[in-house]
Amino acid sequence: MVKTLAALPDGPVTVSGWVETVRDQKKVQFVILRDESGAVQLVNPATREVEEGADAAASARLATTEAISALAHGSFITVTGELKHDERVKLGGLEVKIASLDVVTEANPETPIAADSSLDKRMDWRFLDLRHPKQALIFRIQTTFLHALRGVWVEKGLIEIQTPKLMASASESRAELFEVEYFEGKAYLAQSPQFFKQMAQAAGFGGVFEVGPAFRADPSFTSRHATEFTSIDTEISWINSHEDVMALHEELMVAGFTAVVERHGAEIAELFGIELQVPSRPFPRIPLAEAKQIVADRGYVIPRADDDMDPEGERQISAYVKETFGHDFVFLTDYAASIRPFYHMRHEGDASLTNSYDLIYNGVEISTGAQREHRIDVLVEQARDKGMDPEELEFYLDFFRYGVPPHGGFGMGLARVLMLMLGESSIRETTYLFRGPTRLLP
Amino acid sequence: MVKTLAALPDGPVTVSGWVETVRDQKKVQFVILRDESGAVQLVNPATREVEEGADAAASARLATTEAISALAHGSFITVTGELKHDERVKLGGLEVKIASLDVVTEANPETPIAADSSLDKRMDWRFLDLRHPKQALIFRIQTTFLHALRGVWVEKGLIEIQTPKLMASASESRAELFEVEYFEGKAYLAQSPQFFKQMAQAAGFGGVFEVGPAFRADPSFTSRHATEFTSIDTEISWINSHEDVMALHEELMVAGFTAVVERHGAEIAELFGIELQVPSRPFPRIPLAEAKQIVADRGYVIPRADDDMDPEGERQISAYVKETFGHDFVFLTDYAASIRPFYHMRHEGDASLTNSYDLIYNGVEISTGAQREHRIDVLVEQARDKGMDPEELEFYLDFFRYGVPPHGGFGMGLARVLMLMLGESSIRETTYLFRGPTRLLP
Repeated sequence: MVKTLAALPDGPVTVSGWVETVRDQKKVQFVILRDESGAVQLVNPATREVEEGADAAASARLATTEAISALAHGSFITVTGELKHDERVKLGGLEVKIASLDVVTEANPETPIAADSSLDKRMDWRFLDLRHPKQALIFRIQTTFLHALRGVWVEKGLIEIQTPKLMASASESRAELFEVEYFEGKAYLAQSPQFFKQMAQAAGFGGVFEVGPAFRADPSFTSRHATEFTSIDTEISWINSHEDVMALHEELMVAGFTAVVERHGAEIAELFGIELQVPSRPFPRIPLAEAKQIVADRGYVIPRADDDMDPEGERQISAYVKETFGHDFVFLTDYAASIRPFYHMRHEGDASLTNSYDLIYNGVEISTGAQREHRIDVLVEQARDKGMDPEELEFYLDFFRYGVPPHGGFGMGLARVLMLMLGESSIRETTYLFRGPTRLLP
Repeated sequence: MVKTLAALPDGPVTVSGWVETVRDQKKVQFVILRDESGAVQLVNPATREVEEGADAAASARLATTEAISALAHGSFITVTGELKHDERVKLGGLEVKIASLDVVTEANPETPIAADSSLDKRMDWRFLDLRHPKQALIFRIQTTFLHALRGVWVEKGLIEIQTPKLMASASESRAELFEVEYFEGKAYLAQSPQFFKQMAQAAGFGGVFEVGPAFRADPSFTSRHATEFTSIDTEISWINSHEDVMALHEELMVAGFTAVVERHGAEIAELFGIELQVPSRPFPRIPLAEAKQIVADRGYVIPRADDDMDPEGERQISAYVKETFGHDFVFLTDYAASIRPFYHMRHEGDASLTNSYDLIYNGVEISTGAQREHRIDVLVEQARDKGMDPEELEFYLDFFRYGVPPHGGFGMGLARVLMLMLGESSIRETTYLFRGPTRLLP
């Protein structure tokens, strides 16, 4: 790997990667070779012609020179040569003088995208787009972030589950549901693992986590929505309120950000121009009603008839929190029952409010969490209240009929977290292969 | 948690869980309380009646006694009482004398499954089935196994990807494909992340991994097949042959088994009667043609017209390997091109064989791996050879037109590994919620 060259002494090395650029000067040729770990300069004193009757070595030098001149951007090559540390070389203070070069796969010389291509065009050629160090870094950050979260879960003894994505009915709402031809009948794609992670509570698993796909037949084209996205989910037993869920949520975020800053902080600063900070605990908490008042006091009237926030309201409350507490995160708590799903637990003594929260990060909602209603009679009542037919929910309601502990959890969109962490403008940039109403390729 | 009681001194404690059994004797009541970490005996000297004018404490003792008598199996309760270490108590050498008891959720007293219920019935009530320590242990083993694998991948610098499960076309074959209503058109569920993990090679990611769902519209009802399963996938660049993939595969299995044996070995012995061993490296390797000869020499004629093994053949070669090498695993290598997908690389000089393998564990195939064909002209030729239309594969073939390193990888079924590790008879036992042609619930 390119990265390992720095620690090697001067001498013979072999290195593989793809051709980023070729500078083909008359007397000397330079190739920038890149792999997943970094880039290195290759150098070759050009042999432009050999005299008749020259030896095999001279002919080989001519062949190498011509091969370099013909190199297409993107071709994968393996080079053997002499490593030389030389602090005058800007790129890492070293270069490799080419002895032999093997073109492993030749690239089509006409690269279909350029640095200024539109996002949509770049997505058409995502595998080329991802070769840019900035794009690739996003997925190394993702790897580090998820591994840190799983480290916390495993340390706490939570169980990893893989819940089914094929369901007999909706997991969240009849709207935005994808239908699958399933042998002689129909199945539906899970909109979230909600019901199944709650099932684990009835099963006595104590606490569970899952990182997996979720599907929403959402026709919108915003920068924050996709028809398929990676959902980070956890659910824990024996909580007293949503406060216990938020405490776990904070702990996970701090662990994830700590690992990312440690491992990639310098690269993030270099490629994204962002000095990523580990958030401090506790994150600020503001009840939604209070948040709406704060936003109103700032002069923004939320143009909604219901009790919810809107995207601009989220930006406003985030700005307020940043100014007031210097924090990038805020938990908005105690959402109105009218805008929450039937399974959120309502306040003891005020059924108009729920034991729930949204987590807002840099102005955008990244997660919803809640204590769940575990009392079957109350749950059935709340479902009816939402105009749902308890008979259609029978398999889910059964989970509550044979004993279940108080529990709660959250779901969080991975691509949103990364988008906001890195100041990107769309989750299309932080999703390996985005899926939207008009995009199923590549 | 129950598990933590052992380390506590005698004295007041609070513990929560579900009621496993109640022994309601005239003078004393015993309750076995279980949570995800273990079980503990609760004891209560029965107060069957109180005299008129008795104090509040006596009335409370009567109420507690009656509450215990009324306890349904499965109810979730919280108990406060006095912990006492007493080596005469068989269950963990301790018990808790109940001071107060809170029934958090009452279970329906008629439990719909019993120890001798059929597998299908148990699956109907999976959340109750999973309360059995043996069933729950499977998922704690799964957690440990996956975390160990990811530890290896992350340590090596591989990138975790989440590939889309919604595709515009088939990823493996037109057969066994689920069709999804996708707005005005159709989408298909990914049969494997094959194409997308190869895309990461063209993107210069170097090495990638994913643990996620895969979907096959397979109408069969064997103990090894499901319509949705968790696939463990990895793909790495710059390999010389499938031997490099096998080396990584072995390393991952050894890491996974080591972690499982260390963390759960004693419980596996207790609950499954299995002394799980960490496999030694290297795993035996046998070319398929040789394996078939060995099986034939043992007197089993594989009733297939093509070059493949069959399940009995796999059991036979596994038995041979166990007898000869004392090993539970065997790589069968160099499968015929006729029975491998078009993207497997063929032998240099013998196009009838591929650089591929299956991993057999305790008699059953758990994984297929291979070096992939990365040369576009050869790849197109091989697709045509299989009767495929290269135009339908255009988006995939594009990955090979702009440079790509030699690469390979494997896919492995998680539930199969667990089934064979624990001597279970079906992947239905080692899947959180099984999905088959006639099962979409719960």
